[in-house]
This record gives sequence, C-alpha cells and structure tokens, in this order.
Amino acid sequence: MSTTQANKIEIIKAPTTKINEVDFENLNFGSVFTDHLFECDFKNGEWQNPTIKPYAPFMMDPSSRVFHYGQAIFEGMKAYKDDNNDIWLFRPDENIKRFNSSAVRMAMPEVPEQLFTEGLNQLLKLDEAWIKKGLGNTLYIRPFMIATGFGVVANPSDEYKFMIILSPAKAYYSGEVKVLIAEHFSRAANGGIGAAKTAGNYAGQFYPTSLANKEGFQQVIWTDDATHTKLEEAGTMNVFFRINDTLVTAPTSERILDGVTRKSLIDMAKREGIAIEERSVLVSELIEGIKDGSLKEIFGAGTAAVVSPIKGFAYKEEYFELPKIEDSIALQLKEKLTNMQHKLTEDPFGWTVKI
Amino acid sequence: MSTTQANKIEIIKAPTTKINEVDFENLNFGSVFTDHLFECDFKNGEWQNPTIKPYAPFMMDPSSRVFHYGQAIFEGMKAYKDDNNDIWLFRPDENIKRFNSSAVRMAMPEVPEQLFTEGLNQLLKLDEAWIKKGLGNTLYIRPFMIATGFGVVANPSDEYKFMIILSPAKAYYSGEVKVLIAEHFSRAANGGIGAAKTAGNYAGQFYPTSLANKEGFQQVIWTDDATHTKLEEAGTMNVFFRINDTLVTAPTSERILDGVTRKSLIDMAKREGIAIEERSVLVSELIEGIKDGSLKEIFGAGTAAVVSPIKGFAYKEEYFELPKIEDSIALQLKEKLTNMQHKLTEDPFGWTVKI
Ligand SMILES: Cc1ncc(COP(=O)(O)O)c(C=O)c1O
Ligand SMILES: Cc1ncc(COP(=O)(O)O)c(C=O)c1O
Repeated sequence: MSTTQANKIEIIKAPTTKINEVDFENLNFGSVFTDHLFECDFKNGEWQNPTIKPYAPFMMDPSSRVFHYGQAIFEGMKAYKDDNNDIWLFRPDENIKRFNSSAVRMAMPEVPEQLFTEGLNQLLKLDEAWIKKGLGNTLYIRPFMIATGFGVVANPSDEYKFMIILSPAKAYYSGEVKVLIAEHFSRAANGGIGAAKTAGNYAGQFYPTSLANKEGFQQVIWTDDATHTKLEEAGTMNVFFRINDTLVTAPTSERILDGVTRKSLIDMAKREGIAIEERSVLVSELIEGIKDGSLKEIFGAGTAAVVSPIKGFAYKEEYFELPKIEDSIALQLKEKLTNMQHKLTEDPFGWTVKI
Repeated sequence: MSTTQANKIEIIKAPTTKINEVDFENLNFGSVFTDHLFECDFKNGEWQNPTIKPYAPFMMDPSSRVFHYGQAIFEGMKAYKDDNNDIWLFRPDENIKRFNSSAVRMAMPEVPEQLFTEGLNQLLKLDEAWIKKGLGNTLYIRPFMIATGFGVVANPSDEYKFMIILSPAKAYYSGEVKVLIAEHFSRAANGGIGAAKTAGNYAGQFYPTSLANKEGFQQVIWTDDATHTKLEEAGTMNVFFRINDTLVTAPTSERILDGVTRKSLIDMAKREGIAIEERSVLVSELIEGIKDGSLKEIFGAGTAAVVSPIKGFAYKEEYFELPKIEDSIALQLKEKLTNMQHKLTEDPFGWTVKI
C-alpha cells in the first residue's frame, strides 16, 4: 500500500460561498453541491497531492478509461449536526472498508483509510455551514474513484482520481412506494460485480426500472438471475420483509450490496428482541403471506432512503397490496435509527463518530 | 427521434498535425489518437452542435452521471485504405445498429444513423493521412457516448456526449494465447447487460482476468453464471471451436455480445462449405475433444483481435493443450477476412463500404 500524505492536504478556499443561493427546505436529492471538494490522484503507483479546493469541473481526456471500460466506484454516507454544532458520521469505517472491497473487485487501487478519513473530515469542517441541525437535515457524502488513465485498450488503468463531494439532503421521503418484482431482468450475476458499489451496476437497472415506472412502480426488487424466485434487493436499498413478527432479509452474497443500514437494522432488531432471519426469501412466500395475512410489512433500507416502507408489489402482472398496519416495525426502527444518527438518543453500539 | 443536423457539422481544424511524432511501425493498441475528434451533445431532448475539432481534453463536472452510475457505451470499428487511396469501412451499419441497441438497454438516447455516419465519414476524410495502406495497417475507430448530466441520484441522465476518436492500429498480434475457463467469476447475468457494449461489462472482467494473467493465461473464456458449464465468449472476442471439421460457437443471447466478426465468419464459413453450428458448447465437450483428438482448434473473433488462435486452455487447475495443426480453419478465415477488408480480394457479401 502506498504511503499516505494525509497530513499534507493542500487547501485552496473558494473566494465566495454559494450557500445563500440554496433553499434548504426544497432540495432535490443529489443536485446541489457545497463550496469545496476533496481530490487525490493516483499516479506512478501512489496517491498524490491530496487537495481540498473549490467545487468545479475538471479536465478529462476523451480516452480516459472510465468512459470506455467503467472502472468507477463510489460510496454514500451522511453527516449530521447535533444541537451543540458537533458533526457526526455513522459507521464511516464500514463505508471505507466497502469502498476498498469495491476497489479490489474493480481492479482499482485501495485508498488508505487515513487519507480517506483526513480528506473527508477536513472537507466537512471547511463546509460545515452546509450541515443543518434538526432531524431530517443531513449532508450526503459522495466519495468516488474513477479511472483517468488514457487509452482504449481493455485493461486496468494505471491512473485514478479519488474525490469526495458533498450535497445537502433532506430526509428522502418518497411517498408511497410500490415495487415490481423482477421476472426477466437482473441486476447481478453469480460471480459478478453485484456486491461492489460500482457505476455499471446502476446504469444496468435504469432501463428495467423505467419500464416499471411506466406501469406505476417506483422501484424494482431484483431476484436471482438464474430462477427469478429468490428476492435479493432494490436499486439502492436492501429489502426486509416482516412475516408475522419476524423480519427476514436476504443474506449478503456476491450478488448483493452489503448495506450499512441493513446490518445496523439487524443489530438493532436483535437488541430490541425482534426476531430476525437472514435467509433466502422466495417470491412465493410473499404471495402466500399476502393470501394468509402473515406478510405484514416490506421496507427498503439504505443511507439515502433510510427506511422506506413499501405499500405493495406486482409479480407476473398481478398487484398485491399490503394491509394497513398500526405497529409498524419499519417506522419504529426508522425513528430509532435517525434519532441515534442525529444524536437525539443514546448510541449503545458506538456507531456514531464525532469528527 | 430528434432531427439530425448532420449536414451542418462545424469543422475546427487543428493548427498542426501530430502525425510526424508517431512511429506507425510500433503502435501500442489504442494509445495514439489522430488530430481530430467528432463530438455531438444531447441536450433538451435533441442532438446539438455536431462538431469536428482538435483532439483535446474537455471539462466534466464531478457529479456527471457517467462517473457515478456508469451510463457509457461504445463501439469498435476499423477503417482500411486500399491501393487507390480509397477508404473503406467494414459493415458500419452493424456497428451503428448495435450502438443504438446498447443505448436502449442503458436508457440512453439513440444516435441517428445519418448523424453517426456523417460525423464518422467527415472525420475520417479530415484525418485520412492517419490511415496507412497495406495489409495489417488499420485505423481503429472508437465511437462512444457518456452521460454528462449533473447530480448524484440514481436515475438516467438527461444530457449526453457522443464522440468518435480514432487510433491507428497495427494488426493486433497477441502471440500464443492461452485461456482460462471461468469456474467462479462471470461476465454477465441472465436478464443483465451482457449483450450491450457498455463500459461496466469490461471493468468487471479486469480483476478475474488479472488473476488469470498471474497464472500465465492472457484471457478468460466466460461461462454461464448459473452452472459454469456452457462456454460463452472472451473479454473482447467471441469464441469458435473446431470439432473435427465442424465449427461451433455459442448462440447470441442477452449475455453475449453479438459480434460483427462472429457473424461475418459464420457467413463466410457457410459460403466456403464449412460446417458451422450455433449452439451451446459445454466445457465437458472440450475436454472430451482433447482426449479423443476431435477438438482441433479454438479461436477468438473480434474487430480488434481479428481472428486469434488459442493454443490451450485451463479448467479446474488442469491445462489442456491443442494439437499443432496444418490446415488451420482459423488462419484460412483470417486471411480471407483481412483480404476482403483491405480490398485485396473481392467482397461477395457487399460488406465493405467506401466512404
Ligand atoms: C444496490 C444498493 N443496495 C443497498 C444499498 C444500501 O446500502 P447502505 O445502507 O450502506 O447505504 C445501496 C446504497 O447505498 C445500494 O446502492
Ligand atoms: C465482449 C465482446 N465480445 C465480442 C466482441 C467482438 O465483436 P466484434 O466482432 O463486433 O468486434 C467484442 C469486441 O468488439 C467484445 O467487446
């Protein structure tokens, strides 16, 4: 692993701030960025020139590998501000670890943890005015790495750019979510790249998702590509099913993103004494569960969506709606999680990290 | 479909040429580019400002969708110059059609055929000095499209850039090629994006291919992801097997790129009276074929690699070498194909197109 120069981050400040142009009450997810970004380039086998500088476009060669062969990975994290104006991250070590596993799978260099952490923390401190207090206000953090080496030959780049950009985000409220269960299209192959947070996994979902959108479904729940009988995950969320009083969710595998929200909810449920099973869930179980009333809830879990209740699902042209529920486990877990993240309640797990 | 402005291509000429700096006898594939490129932007629902201009880096926003969600497709074609200095393409309509199917699968806008053709032809005429005469000299053509819209939200971009860049290429001679047959990793899922020429399909192969490289194999031959028993294709080539005097190759599917070289070789073989079957080929057939002597040849077929004989393969830790052969069908087809492409022999199929 290359030496980090984390303690030598060069900081070039923006002459003015854009913050006054931003309506923090009406934010479209991921569309407004803060004044600065963190950047570091990988060249000649090492990470070089870590820099914080004004958010701005940059030059890319038309033959850059990322455009042709898709070496590109990212992460999604959030920063929260508490009532004392302290800034908190939620399990950042998990994101850094996952970023580096994605890097390995995509034949890209790992980013040293110290470099990642220092770059992120210094950037957050500089742009801290963009993190608003109060439940529901967050700063979405997007670390990413792209292949910048030249040449249209299908092998790994020898140059990369690592960047962190920041976008203020309101709680992602998606209204009533109806999902389509995939019967033909797939997100990931056995032995493929489904467990990596890599760009190509997302573009591949856009077309099937647009077909679902046309039929009135906001998301697709992916199934295993060989039989389309096992439920896997949604486009940017892992998925939980509540059968009677037991939560079930697909086990992680090389086809599924190992979500930080997913694993946190599992641990929270265990602590609350809620029964939880990590096992393959069959589409047929859902349909039976609707018929006999045992299927009580379905919800997605992810950093952007937090916990997102699902109202109903379609499978093979039939639509199944979930019963209305009073004692929603989804909403209970969501409240506990967001309160913990915003430091409104105790964090018995040690997941929240002050920067 | 948007209106094309193909007849209004703006041309900005490079003040000088880089051609004298290039050693045309020693070219690394895909690393040297000609003086100009073609560019056209998709904005507000239409293709705008088609321009030929000097090859140069361009500005990209850090939040450009291609970096985060991988909407990126490309094609690979070649131009040839004959003894009369005429410039020829090989089945360009097939590449344009495939480019636009890739676009649909990746939720990107199609490029009108006339715009693609006009942009390419005018670019080739301007940089025609870069196409050298003689068998083995070609100009590799790389049309590509990337999502340039801003924002880190996982849905399709509304802005795109289409570009064509050109790179002089010698015949791709890869020496002796040994391949590893995939037992764990995969290239494509059922219902996935394997049939699209999209960036993410390539990055996903780099890590498994690097593992194969370390064991002395240049390429991986991918198998179906569910059972790893059926042979599919290699990283940038379709694959043919000669069993006794019959050629067999996997049928196209949504997991396999529908190669122009592959389909051309099939038609050429038919015309020559060579038996050819498009059917699933099992790994076990190859092993039996080695043992009983019926497996005579394996070769890859693709625009960059042309026809590339394979010397041997490994499967489950065992290496199988093919017998030496006198009357190679691979080399026979390769010669016929390249002679046709370079206009050294007749083209009975009408595949070669003068620009
Ligand atoms: C494909 C996919 N699954 C699941 C998740 C949820 O993961 P996490 O909880 O770590 O945000 C995400 C998004 O982040 C994702 O992109
Ligand atoms: C995955 C893949 N398969 C096959 C091929 C061969 O296709 P074609 O003969 O059209 O070049 C290519 C390359 O072009 C490819 O990228």
